[in-house]
Amino acid sequence: MNIDEYIKEQQQLINDHLKKEIKKIEMPLNLYTALEYAIEAGGKRLRPILMMATFDAFNENKKKVIQPAIALELIHTYSLIHDDLPAMDDDDFRRGKPTIHKQFDEATAILIGDGLLTYAFQIISMSKELEAEEKVYCLHQLSQASGFEGMIAGQYLDLKAENEELTEQQLIGVHRKKTGELIRAAVKIGSYLGKATPPQIEALNQFADYLGLIFQIQDDILDVTGTDDEIGKPTGSDEGNNKSTYPKILGLEGALKKKQTYIDLAVEKYNEAKINHPFLLDLINLFGNRSY
Amino acid sequence: MNIDEYIKEQQQLINDHLKKEIKKIEMPLNLYTALEYAIEAGGKRLRPILMMATFDAFNENKKKVIQPAIALELIHTYSLIHDDLPAMDDDDFRRGKPTIHKQFDEATAILIGDGLLTYAFQIISMSKELEAEEKVYCLHQLSQASGFEGMIAGQYLDLKAENEELTEQQLIGVHRKKTGELIRAAVKIGSYLGKATPPQIEALNQFADYLGLIFQIQDDILDVTGTDDEIGKPTGSDEGNNKSTYPKILGLEGALKKKQTYIDLAVEKYNEAKINHPFLLDLINLFGNRSY
Repeated sequence: MNIDEYIKEQQQLINDHLKKEIKKIEMPLNLYTALEYAIEAGGKRLRPILMMATFDAFNENKKKVIQPAIALELIHTYSLIHDDLPAMDDDDFRRGKPTIHKQFDEATAILIGDGLLTYAFQIISMSKELEAEEKVYCLHQLSQASGFEGMIAGQYLDLKAENEELTEQQLIGVHRKKTGELIRAAVKIGSYLGKATPPQIEALNQFADYLGLIFQIQDDILDVTGTDDEIGKPTGSDEGNNKSTYPKILGLEGALKKKQTYIDLAVEKYNEAKINHPFLLDLINLFGNRSY
Repeated sequence: MNIDEYIKEQQQLINDHLKKEIKKIEMPLNLYTALEYAIEAGGKRLRPILMMATFDAFNENKKKVIQPAIALELIHTYSLIHDDLPAMDDDDFRRGKPTIHKQFDEATAILIGDGLLTYAFQIISMSKELEAEEKVYCLHQLSQASGFEGMIAGQYLDLKAENEELTEQQLIGVHRKKTGELIRAAVKIGSYLGKATPPQIEALNQFADYLGLIFQIQDDILDVTGTDDEIGKPTGSDEGNNKSTYPKILGLEGALKKKQTYIDLAVEKYNEAKINHPFLLDLINLFGNRSY
């Protein structure tokens, strides 16, 4: 199996389970319609794929990791829905489709986001595949990474930094919180559930830290070089929002160079983990060279 | 100790622990200021008091129940902040003070709500007082009660029912979800952690179901009979929002009678639980006769 086939297989697995998990919910029909729309809007499922690929390096019985992976994707999906709200980034399109508050209404978007976040924790708490200790580990990692100390702080700092010129170090700090923490949680949970050793978990944690930075640099580069069709929303929006980005601070050339530096460091950390699972190396490319 | 002293003591304990728990968070200073404002806006702390009083009926070592009680209050606080948003109930005042989106801004209110919800789960996952199995129980109860099958469904149905005339049964259905589920979770967690027997947990679960209905009838009655000063926001807002309420469906007289029926049923369920903890009976009055 090559990496493209591998990713397709994981995406299929994630999409099937996502549908299955939300079908279990007894909720008002109109709200369910909006939930289904939110889930089926798609996306690359990079975070759950990363968690499952990390798990795969240590253990082949995927049953244990699928629900935490789904939970992670639900948290990511909630964060996009709330970030898109008029009071936040005010985006009308996401992945080429109207955002939830445009397709339905703002109240629905707020509630769908709240519900996705809550259901992420519920899924793990109800899992039949995980021991209580494993559930607690997953819940702790996910809540910490997505909360006031992680993703929410990042989104807040990102919003408040509009019209301000950040240094490269400040920008890294914002992105570590906004996107990095959840990417690290993916790898920590995947390796923990797969029963990696503590040094392996730590090496992969650092691998994931670089992966997060690579992801963000590529995001910023795409906003300059991509087309609207490729990324599913208007390009150049960072410029319009007066956001600090890697290309603005380092120039496009410098940003590309920096990305390569982080790619090299990520490979180093992968080697430190002493595992043989080349798909994880391929994921570096998926994070760093995606055109969408 | 009489009930007033008991409640004061619990409120003090809850407020002290709330402050302590949020002080632990490393987060951007301005966002922390808003979080502190949200926590210190006060409120009666009815839900955590109910959880602790239920626990008290079985076990005196409060250490086990304090963090789940705090988590419950954080979830309740998040729900108020999001419900007050312009796209939802659009309230400018809460407990006599400007709501978060008025005092700060809408983005901050959304993020503070998201963060409180997330931190509720984080606190339980990190608790040093609870076994893993106990954590999972609390996390399951709280996420289910506050999610798509509970509070979020209730808030959605409540919003969509504006300008519609509900029957009494439909109204009960909405309120069971919007406020009832979380009140039941309080009692289930309190009795479970206190090591009540399954029949006791079930009797108290039904006790809590009536308590929730009593709470909501009183809420509706206060909107008709209370003063702005007493309840900290404009009265008559249900009328203005064209909301279905118990007094509208049953008349004020009928609503008061219905409340008394539920009070009698709650007492019956308390007796079925075969415990000796009169403070729990006193709480029925607190829920049913509060003037604020």
